[in-house]
Amino acid sequence: MKKQPEEQPWKVVSSEYLERKPWLTVRRECVELPNGNRIPEYYVLEYPDWVNTLAITRDGRFLFVRQYRHGIGRTDYELCAGVCDPEDPSPLAAAQRELREETGYGNGTWQEYMVISPNASTHTNLAHCFLATGVEPVGERHLEETEDLSVHLLTLDEVRDLLRRDAVKQSLMAAPLWKYMAENRLF
Amino acid sequence: MKKQPEEQPWKVVSSEYLERKPWLTVRRECVELPNGNRIPEYYVLEYPDWVNTLAITRDGRFLFVRQYRHGIGRTDYELCAGVCDPEDPSPLAAAQRELREETGYGNGTWQEYMVISPNASTHTNLAHCFLATGVEPVGERHLEETEDLSVHLLTLDEVRDLLRRDAVKQSLMAAPLWKYMAENRLF
Repeated sequence: MKKQPEEQPWKVVSSEYLERKPWLTVRRECVELPNGNRIPEYYVLEYPDWVNTLAITRDGRFLFVRQYRHGIGRTDYELCAGVCDPEDPSPLAAAQRELREETGYGNGTWQEYMVISPNASTHTNLAHCFLATGVEPVGERHLEETEDLSVHLLTLDEVRDLLRRDAVKQSLMAAPLWKYMAENRLF
Repeated sequence: MKKQPEEQPWKVVSSEYLERKPWLTVRRECVELPNGNRIPEYYVLEYPDWVNTLAITRDGRFLFVRQYRHGIGRTDYELCAGVCDPEDPSPLAAAQRELREETGYGNGTWQEYMVISPNASTHTNLAHCFLATGVEPVGERHLEETEDLSVHLLTLDEVRDLLRRDAVKQSLMAAPLWKYMAENRLF
């Protein structure tokens, strides 16, 4: 059976890199759709996979960070997050490394909780969201020179309040937090 | 009281546009953090605000679309979504226009359900997620030449199954869907 047009990949007619910087890699492509129409300039942003972690301590506190975000010019409560480095053997290892570096917490029981796309139309990468329960302090934080962030241990009521006020702005973090509330019937 | 460093905006030392295309606007900035450290090349992507809609028909079906997404090279179930055009008087009007154009559905009761960020560190824009209940067919679809998408009316069980299988990849859509499941205790 012939696949519906929307199920078929676009044909890449031509592709060139506009930028290949450590923090910005952009391809410009001319693409042809199954219906024969062409988009002469389609931009694709290449990134390594990202990770974030919904981490809960042994006494039931939710581990959040606050960090200024230059894109929207705001500081909000966020989950601990980062980028999969080439040295990280897996997304799980990247998430555990980031939690350790940014918050000083570790151990606990980890599971990959969601794998979602930052933006399926423009971004090549996926975000691996982990759920870590029973985490505990394991040592000093190790922040990079360009990281200014504070660590906050929130109660379930405080997390519910953040969600109710739409105060977790980052969609890659709002999704696993709402999933946790839905699955555990906490809202 | 002095604000904590992470609560203070970065100082923009210099800023220049690398690209100012209709679908790609990128600024490169040299920024200075409150701790005095500088990031010499920070990239900011400028976009207009985006909209999407969790639309439910009068008989309780959830309105989804399927569309090929070139960034991750996949076709998945998605909420109807789009961009706020300069002609749209409001995000609500943009969302209603998109639903009408892409699916042929309209009317019903609308509320702004979440306002989240596609990526707070790199993107300047916000995504306005609407909840529309009681929508109904109101006319023909009007797709752009570069839009290949099919419309699907899913049951609550089918939506739950998509979420359980992590099959709604787009984070801007996973977040309001999980919120709906949490608030209505449907999961």
